[in-house]
Amino acid sequence: MRVAILGVGLIGGSIGLAARARADAEVCGYDPDERVRAKALELGAIDAQASDVRSAVAGADVVFAATPIGALAETVRLALDAAGPDCVVSDVGSTKRVLADVAADERFIGGHPLAGAETAGVEHSRADLFDGATWYLTPATGSTAGVLYERLHRLLSRLGARPSAIDADMHDRLMACVSHLPHVLANVLVEQATSVLGEDSQRLPAVGPSFREATRVAGANSAIWTDIYTSNSDAIIASIDEICGRLQEVRGLLSAGERSPVDAWNDRARAQRDALLSAGLTGGATAEQVYELRVSVPNRPGVIAEIALALGGAGVNILDMALARAHDNRHGMLELWIAGERHARHASELVAGLGFPVVQA
Amino acid sequence: MRVAILGVGLIGGSIGLAARARADAEVCGYDPDERVRAKALELGAIDAQASDVRSAVAGADVVFAATPIGALAETVRLALDAAGPDCVVSDVGSTKRVLADVAADERFIGGHPLAGAETAGVEHSRADLFDGATWYLTPATGSTAGVLYERLHRLLSRLGARPSAIDADMHDRLMACVSHLPHVLANVLVEQATSVLGEDSQRLPAVGPSFREATRVAGANSAIWTDIYTSNSDAIIASIDEICGRLQEVRGLLSAGERSPVDAWNDRARAQRDALLSAGLTGGATAEQVYELRVSVPNRPGVIAEIALALGGAGVNILDMALARAHDNRHGMLELWIAGERHARHASELVAGLGFPVVQA
Repeated sequence: MRVAILGVGLIGGSIGLAARARADAEVCGYDPDERVRAKALELGAIDAQASDVRSAVAGADVVFAATPIGALAETVRLALDAAGPDCVVSDVGSTKRVLADVAADERFIGGHPLAGAETAGVEHSRADLFDGATWYLTPATGSTAGVLYERLHRLLSRLGARPSAIDADMHDRLMACVSHLPHVLANVLVEQATSVLGEDSQRLPAVGPSFREATRVAGANSAIWTDIYTSNSDAIIASIDEICGRLQEVRGLLSAGERSPVDAWNDRARAQRDALLSAGLTGGATAEQVYELRVSVPNRPGVIAEIALALGGAGVNILDMALARAHDNRHGMLELWIAGERHARHASELVAGLGFPVVQA
Repeated sequence: MRVAILGVGLIGGSIGLAARARADAEVCGYDPDERVRAKALELGAIDAQASDVRSAVAGADVVFAATPIGALAETVRLALDAAGPDCVVSDVGSTKRVLADVAADERFIGGHPLAGAETAGVEHSRADLFDGATWYLTPATGSTAGVLYERLHRLLSRLGARPSAIDADMHDRLMACVSHLPHVLANVLVEQATSVLGEDSQRLPAVGPSFREATRVAGANSAIWTDIYTSNSDAIIASIDEICGRLQEVRGLLSAGERSPVDAWNDRARAQRDALLSAGLTGGATAEQVYELRVSVPNRPGVIAEIALALGGAGVNILDMALARAHDNRHGMLELWIAGERHARHASELVAGLGFPVVQA
């Protein structure tokens, strides 16, 4: 398999290392910064360097655009122009609707690995960066080609990630809530503490562990975060409005001065947190039995995306998938591997509900 | 020295262990729960148990009320009734204005160690719980007796803590900002994520590290936190209003869609966070040279509190203090040990500014 990586920073470099070591891929890398390309080559993140997008993409089976968000749309457009008809083009941007314009191409599948937020730079690349990490994919139900989705899914699994299909709108709303809003809150908490303590005060602030943790991400790398804030601003604004509404409710609780509603509110938060985190912690990497489902699918764009999105939306984790074309080239057999009997049964029902014949192997 | 502890949970038990091991104190403990008293005795947190407040306090030099916040005022009142004229009574509550009614007594000094928030119960007591921890003291400038303040300060230092004088109002505002508000935000973030993900969804939520950290304290022990929320509600409400105002400003920045103000906002947050945390990290435990100041003070209540509050408010950390009465019993000599030349000079100026003769020894 030939992989092209456009932008070999931390994420691009780590994809290269993992693809070479774990997927036996031949990796060609491009970066606008010549020194970065040379460094990636020196570190073994790429087999060869290209001096432009077109030559990097030539002959590739999979292309990853891994530039900063601001340059992604242009990079993806160039990649699609240069890529062959059987090449899948993806990206690794933290917001996904921003590529809506270029996403109409059936060869494009948006992506977002939840990894590597802490550092930057090809010199920090690691082959194991994506181990166990959710890697969101945002296929378009109307267009994405099934065979390309399956190829990308399989490659990401080999990189160590857990690919999960999600609607681009839902992705951006979800990230606004669980990542972008916590970053905004960290920033405003720091502003507020600075104001309370006084800019010039030398008082040693009593920053306990809750403050320290809540503000660890304050002022995260602007080179990345200004892109995120501006590209997902509408979803973040909606998230800000919602959190302010919730804060007004808390304000009401506190103003009323009754203990038991405060108790109930706080206990509910504990239960919700436990539910959220236990789901996140046990997700995917379970010791549950693996079930294989076989789905007969028509050979048209968007089918695999439709199934993957339906299962992803229901929280079913597809451990692996394979797609075999039937001889008539009009139908195919999609094999899905799912962990856990309950999830497998749920997946069967969902797939059948979409109108596709399904059997458990 | 005889120490009485009223309420031998985690904090009370740890005070007992540290006072016995490090300050050679004789510790008598009372707890309304007989089994807790017995456990404290068994663990060596107290030398003897008392079956009521009065007998616990009898003959004590220092009393700590370490009950839940809801019971503090009553416990402190009982302790002051039972305590002798030369006994200092303190508490360990997380909010400090709540004791304003009883604080008029010159033997009372409010306290709040920033430690032990994670667990509860005498079985988790540790002699080193307060090592390096800020221990706020809220003496009243008008009344607190100097010799008692000095005794308490010295004992807390021996327990391993860093006592720091602070105005009760400022304490509650500060805690609202750096502790209570982060807890509120953790709760509402969890609510919001649950709502976005859907209560019944089995989707594995993509809770990245920023969300995980920002919500670690969500739904913290209601037995403690409902007291905190209700006893400090006005300061928390003010903090909520302020953070909502700041969020509206961010909303405006994002709506405008200009990159450079977003950059500037984010960079400012980083600088502020670095400033806050570096001050917190280096505070107190420095390798700086220690300076001794000698202050001549009139022998009247409130003087030591006035000086301690002035230095605490300016961020000067008093490493240790001693108070010697002059023979005429109308004046005394207060010795202060301060780390760092700059702080020592600043302290001299502040003390002189308050009208007290001061020399550097």
